[in-house]
Amino acid sequence: MTWRDPAALSTTELEEGSDIALDFGRFSSANGDGVVPVVAQDIESRDVLVLAHANRLALEYTLREGVAAFWSMSRDRLWIKGETSGNVLDVEEVRVNCEQNSLLYLVRLRKDGVCHTLENGVARHSCYYRRIAGDRLEPVQSWRL
Amino acid sequence: MTWRDPAALSTTELEEGSDIALDFGRFSSANGDGVVPVVAQDIESRDVLVLAHANRLALEYTLREGVAAFWSMSRDRLWIKGETSGNVLDVEEVRVNCEQNSLLYLVRLRKDGVCHTLENGVARHSCYYRRIAGDRLEPVQSWRL
Repeated sequence: MTWRDPAALSTTELEEGSDIALDFGRFSSANGDGVVPVVAQDIESRDVLVLAHANRLALEYTLREGVAAFWSMSRDRLWIKGETSGNVLDVEEVRVNCEQNSLLYLVRLRKDGVCHTLENGVARHSCYYRRIAGDRLEPVQSWRL
Repeated sequence: MTWRDPAALSTTELEEGSDIALDFGRFSSANGDGVVPVVAQDIESRDVLVLAHANRLALEYTLREGVAAFWSMSRDRLWIKGETSGNVLDVEEVRVNCEQNSLLYLVRLRKDGVCHTLENGVARHSCYYRRIAGDRLEPVQSWRL
């Protein structure tokens, strides 16, 4: 794909234009690949499900295959969400922020949850199942707001 | 506040426990401060508004003052959202993900938008106002889903 170098664009072109010019220069994986943070949001419940990272390879995979892929920062490899658990996320839309340095995947869940942690034997719907309450964490009563 | 070192906890303690043990070790700002990515979500419209980063100082400010603060990665300083624009975000809840390496701020907007970019002279509601469509970006028709 013909993506542009963000350094070659003006601020107006970057923020108001239609050229894809993602800034993979701010963060990098252990092997030096540039990554951007990615939020995955459930297009139905509108819950924020997971925050991960994508390099160019992971984003291209996501756009081509229509399922959420990230770059695993801990394992330093392409991470196709649900490849082992079956908790695949179908991606309906990929949004880009103003400065083109982060992404929003709007997704539909094939199964119930996205989290690798379990509650009553089932993957939690969202990774954000605890809130800060004073000096402690406490469970969110429902994963929905 | 008495937060724990995540390296001192077992995976079960980190993921299922009530100890705050945020992992500020994966990413750092230019001055070497550890940061975690933060998603801010509108508790009313449920739009994902902005993705930024917080170090311990920014998170403590947010918890103490009840307004969203981040650590500006470009300016390398505490960034109290809306300090110049007035687009302050009141934080109703801070959630932590399974691995304690990212945060979710559930916020209420004092004004219309959070983005530093403008549309018709008004701050855009969310920074995610464009989607990837083939090789181009195109405006999202409405910032609501």
